Amino acid sequence: MKATAKAHTNIALIKYWGKRNEAIILPTNNSLSLTLDGYYTTTTVEFDESLSQDQFMLDEQIASGEQYSRVTAFLDIIRQMAGKQLFANVTSVNEVPTAAGFASSASGFAALAAAGSKAIGLHLSEKELSRLTRRGSGSACRSIYGGFAEWEMGMREDGEDSYAIPIAPANYWDIRVAAVVLSATKKSVSSRAGMRRTVETSPFFQGWLDSISYDLAEIKQGIKARDFQKVGEIAEANCMKMHATTLGAKPPFTYWHDTTLVVMQKVWEMRSQGIPVYFTIDAGPNVKVLYLPEHEAYIEQTLRELQGVTDIRLSKSGQGITYI
Amino acid sequence: MKATAKAHTNIALIKYWGKRNEAIILPTNNSLSLTLDGYYTTTTVEFDESLSQDQFMLDEQIASGEQYSRVTAFLDIIRQMAGKQLFANVTSVNEVPTAAGFASSASGFAALAAAGSKAIGLHLSEKELSRLTRRGSGSACRSIYGGFAEWEMGMREDGEDSYAIPIAPANYWDIRVAAVVLSATKKSVSSRAGMRRTVETSPFFQGWLDSISYDLAEIKQGIKARDFQKVGEIAEANCMKMHATTLGAKPPFTYWHDTTLVVMQKVWEMRSQGIPVYFTIDAGPNVKVLYLPEHEAYIEQTLRELQGVTDIRLSKSGQGITYI
Repeated sequence: MKATAKAHTNIALIKYWGKRNEAIILPTNNSLSLTLDGYYTTTTVEFDESLSQDQFMLDEQIASGEQYSRVTAFLDIIRQMAGKQLFANVTSVNEVPTAAGFASSASGFAALAAAGSKAIGLHLSEKELSRLTRRGSGSACRSIYGGFAEWEMGMREDGEDSYAIPIAPANYWDIRVAAVVLSATKKSVSSRAGMRRTVETSPFFQGWLDSISYDLAEIKQGIKARDFQKVGEIAEANCMKMHATTLGAKPPFTYWHDTTLVVMQKVWEMRSQGIPVYFTIDAGPNVKVLYLPEHEAYIEQTLRELQGVTDIRLSKSGQGITYI
Repeated sequence: MKATAKAHTNIALIKYWGKRNEAIILPTNNSLSLTLDGYYTTTTVEFDESLSQDQFMLDEQIASGEQYSRVTAFLDIIRQMAGKQLFANVTSVNEVPTAAGFASSASGFAALAAAGSKAIGLHLSEKELSRLTRRGSGSACRSIYGGFAEWEMGMREDGEDSYAIPIAPANYWDIRVAAVVLSATKKSVSSRAGMRRTVETSPFFQGWLDSISYDLAEIKQGIKARDFQKVGEIAEANCMKMHATTLGAKPPFTYWHDTTLVVMQKVWEMRSQGIPVYFTIDAGPNVKVLYLPEHEAYIEQTLRELQGVTDIRLSKSGQGITYI
């Protein structure tokens, strides 16, 4: 009753921004991501009849508080699916530096879902695993797959049709991502709270939703044609729209910092010089820069010289779930 | 057949953002502004039977190109209203430093309309003068009045019901505005082009329009009650929404520069310390900071120390049109 799984985090090119059901995590729109090889979580789950409660060791520390309760709540879902009331020993190691601005929850819940469901004896398809993973962290459901994946929002109230599907595997196309680490990264509004405030109060939320189907169709065409300019333009435009919605919230807010603009401006400047380079930004100040391998050296060097940039972390397209 | 008028520029607290008719300048929404005493244009118009064409001297230079053609096109409207085919000698002096990020077109066309219509013998009411001024530059129609003024967008296709009305005179309430001059102020998209692209392509434009009536009602309540917090919050939120719309345009763009964010962040920081201070931003990177007289010294000093800030220019509420 023991299994180990490794899952990578992912970066959304079409953003998940808005929940229609917070309890079972159902989104208001489809999203599309690239799984990244540089950032992953390895998790071992062992169900054990002798345990009287779950135990969770994260990065060699005993986890408590919200970290612990999110894991046990997720294990409850697995126990219910399997019809077995057994507690587990969970050990996780994150290779997702928080400074890079990636959420470890995506790789964390994907690895937990994979290891936990296997350990308890469930034999889930990738679709079933993605649907389960979604309950832990929405964006994590895309990390089941390598390369490009799309989270289909679904229509049902019970979430049975809300899970990710593969779009193109990791080895399909060598797109790179540079995570630009900024010196000032204090986040005043959590992504969960920001999403909720935006859905409830922004006059732009409907416009955001209305624009998703166009962006999704275009970016999938771009991926199919390996048209980097198209993929980059759509990803950047989609990110700009997501961040626009927060400016209309009551009260308004932004995840951008002045250094965020410094990086954005530099990307635009490089593009005006003929280099195909684009950015995307999640619910925080850090910027992720998209480019092709042949421009890596120049782009890394250029970004590293910017004021306020403390580190650049490079990543390629990564694999989906692997069992160890 | 000679008259001289002085008009001040104004800063919109509820933004004019979107035209429904570009030829005769009809807006898509009402806007509301504060006229500023620090920035003005003084214009003398003399109609003269001996002239064979208009002459326009701007800041002691003979004007040509678009500057000249906008003035003659505007004089054509005045000539048509008066039924007189006379050319004019126009002399304008701007006290609107371009570095401060204020458009001299607002004070310029208000002064030109006032001096030109008086010189040719038209006896216009303020409402008629505002409607005429609108034809030269939309936001200029608010500069007919001192203090707070509202541009009523009107419903008619011929623009007869589109003009500004006074909300509260200059001496009603001592609100101050600091224009924060930034070192990097290159503007890649003109306000005219940005407005058009946003109206035509942004999925957020309808949300912007839908939110105007609430903002207008609230800010007018705030002005009536001399409730600075309310006026500031609404003005800042309205500015955030205007700038959000550009992020959804195809292609997306922003008027913000990294130094714009530096000033915004400092305003939020001062506010978190209990100082009632707010900002608004027009179609460019500069920031205008709103505050009450008792906080002027501290706010000026604080803003002056920011990186990227080259100057701070302070202004009070200004008068409407005066004839000299």
